[in-house]
Amino acid sequence: MNARLAATELQYATLLQQELEATRALLISACSSIPLPARYVVEQLVNRGGKQLRPAIVLLSAHLAQSDLEVALLAAAGVEMLHTATLIHDDIIDNASVRRGIPTLNAQLPVTAAVLAGDIAFAQAARLIARTGIPLIVERFSTTLETICRGELDQMFRSHGCLPSQETYFGRIFAKTASLFSLCAQIGPLLSQSSPECIEQAQQFGHLVGEAFQITDDVLDLLGDSHKIGKPVGVDIRQGLATLPIILYAEDHPDDRRLDEVLSGTADEAQIGDFLSDLIRSGATDKAMQAARSRKVEALTILQAYPPSAHRRALEELVQFAVDRVT
Amino acid sequence: MNARLAATELQYATLLQQELEATRALLISACSSIPLPARYVVEQLVNRGGKQLRPAIVLLSAHLAQSDLEVALLAAAGVEMLHTATLIHDDIIDNASVRRGIPTLNAQLPVTAAVLAGDIAFAQAARLIARTGIPLIVERFSTTLETICRGELDQMFRSHGCLPSQETYFGRIFAKTASLFSLCAQIGPLLSQSSPECIEQAQQFGHLVGEAFQITDDVLDLLGDSHKIGKPVGVDIRQGLATLPIILYAEDHPDDRRLDEVLSGTADEAQIGDFLSDLIRSGATDKAMQAARSRKVEALTILQAYPPSAHRRALEELVQFAVDRVT
Repeated sequence: MNARLAATELQYATLLQQELEATRALLISACSSIPLPARYVVEQLVNRGGKQLRPAIVLLSAHLAQSDLEVALLAAAGVEMLHTATLIHDDIIDNASVRRGIPTLNAQLPVTAAVLAGDIAFAQAARLIARTGIPLIVERFSTTLETICRGELDQMFRSHGCLPSQETYFGRIFAKTASLFSLCAQIGPLLSQSSPECIEQAQQFGHLVGEAFQITDDVLDLLGDSHKIGKPVGVDIRQGLATLPIILYAEDHPDDRRLDEVLSGTADEAQIGDFLSDLIRSGATDKAMQAARSRKVEALTILQAYPPSAHRRALEELVQFAVDRVT
Repeated sequence: MNARLAATELQYATLLQQELEATRALLISACSSIPLPARYVVEQLVNRGGKQLRPAIVLLSAHLAQSDLEVALLAAAGVEMLHTATLIHDDIIDNASVRRGIPTLNAQLPVTAAVLAGDIAFAQAARLIARTGIPLIVERFSTTLETICRGELDQMFRSHGCLPSQETYFGRIFAKTASLFSLCAQIGPLLSQSSPECIEQAQQFGHLVGEAFQITDDVLDLLGDSHKIGKPVGVDIRQGLATLPIILYAEDHPDDRRLDEVLSGTADEAQIGDFLSDLIRSGATDKAMQAARSRKVEALTILQAYPPSAHRRALEELVQFAVDRVT
């Protein structure tokens, strides 16, 4: 399982093919309430949804918890719509011009139109989630939306170019990624009104997978991702954002002053290149990947509580994928 | 009842004093999840909430439908938070610098921070609404949010400076105002699981009051509002936005070419002033107020179905206030 896996080769994509298509149909139908021309852009964004990891986790968790799949489809579309809405507003915040290979809303239309299109996507997400008929799911959905936005706003008001503690880093990746993964994983047990322990375990499972996924993404930002040829390395650090490998490197090399220069933006390209080479040689990225792998193992252990099935295997494989993208 | 009424003199403010204070406490508590310094601005916005018409309608409708008041408080805070969130994003769209006498979020902080603060306010609104535990309320809440945003986006993509049909005008004021009033009025019967007919009547009541309120606002924009001394008249028309009195004037004066010039922004101040004087003399504002008053009468008729009570009287008075602000 150490070979790199493309999402299209993954078992869940085949196993859930029909359900993921139904999820996408719900999403496209929800887009119809966005006025043109903004609708075209959001539809394209949805159609290029890529790995669909989040709806896949919702659907697999629903299979494992033996919940009503019709209702699970609504939730799967709801979380993906929430993800889409946050991407639309993210792109405004970051002034990004391309997302999933297409020009962003804010690059094509006035920013104000992008704000409103994102708001409609939020509303549609909330509506899909409300249609599950389970108030607790709506409440957790709202809390997740709040966590995601608060995380971004926190980051905006926090001074950049500083070295955060591990605690701050894990708080940030919870807000950015793990909170939504955690919501996705809970939906199955919440729909089938499983025991509080079971819901708690699912929440923990999603949290671990989300953290593992984000740590891996952060390592790939330093090592380069063969799936994204031509993508520059070290994007985060150039923006003054210190991720786990950087924090681990700093812990082991408290006297290396180059880090301050790189984070504060005063280092030139050659200095950044030298620093990144030394950082990778130091084993800091391996150490970060160990943190990702230990979360993967914990997450897989939680899955052992469910009887073996094709859906459990697909979820196990999805968890492997979250981490094994780094060879 | 033709004398102008200040909101503070209204009966509902006294009758609901404790409940409106409890609503505000819920709102302030919800603000605590917004990171500083954005939180200060949203708290100020909430504290200067003014007439609190929307929560008052929720609470009065809950009294009339004899629903659980603890739960109604959550909904009252939820709709006011939704209203606050839409104001935050509105101010970004309009590039407004002052709201309720204080500088807007977008005037004080980067626009991106204002976008996120608005998102958190949406999330908090959804969370408060979810806590009512009634999925149908959440669904209607989401639909209302969608209607409001879609209305704004529609307006953004529609060519300005044109004369809309009455149908377009009423579609616009439904999105802007009446949809949320309608949601507020439904909450009582929805909470007490009243009959579909009763919910439908409440929805219609809110719709009528919202339309009456917005038509009145649009007339006050032309006549001037003694409560807002120093506020310029004709703000809408100067922005190329034709409201009901303008549409009614145009229907009666199809040959007056000045309107095109005013709406398209090619008229100078003197020409605008002349046109507005003629418009008011023509009786178009009176005709618009007749439309507002007929909605008021219809709304009051719906209230007759409820047995007389202090809360019904307060709601009747609130409906009067929506229209009788124009002497």
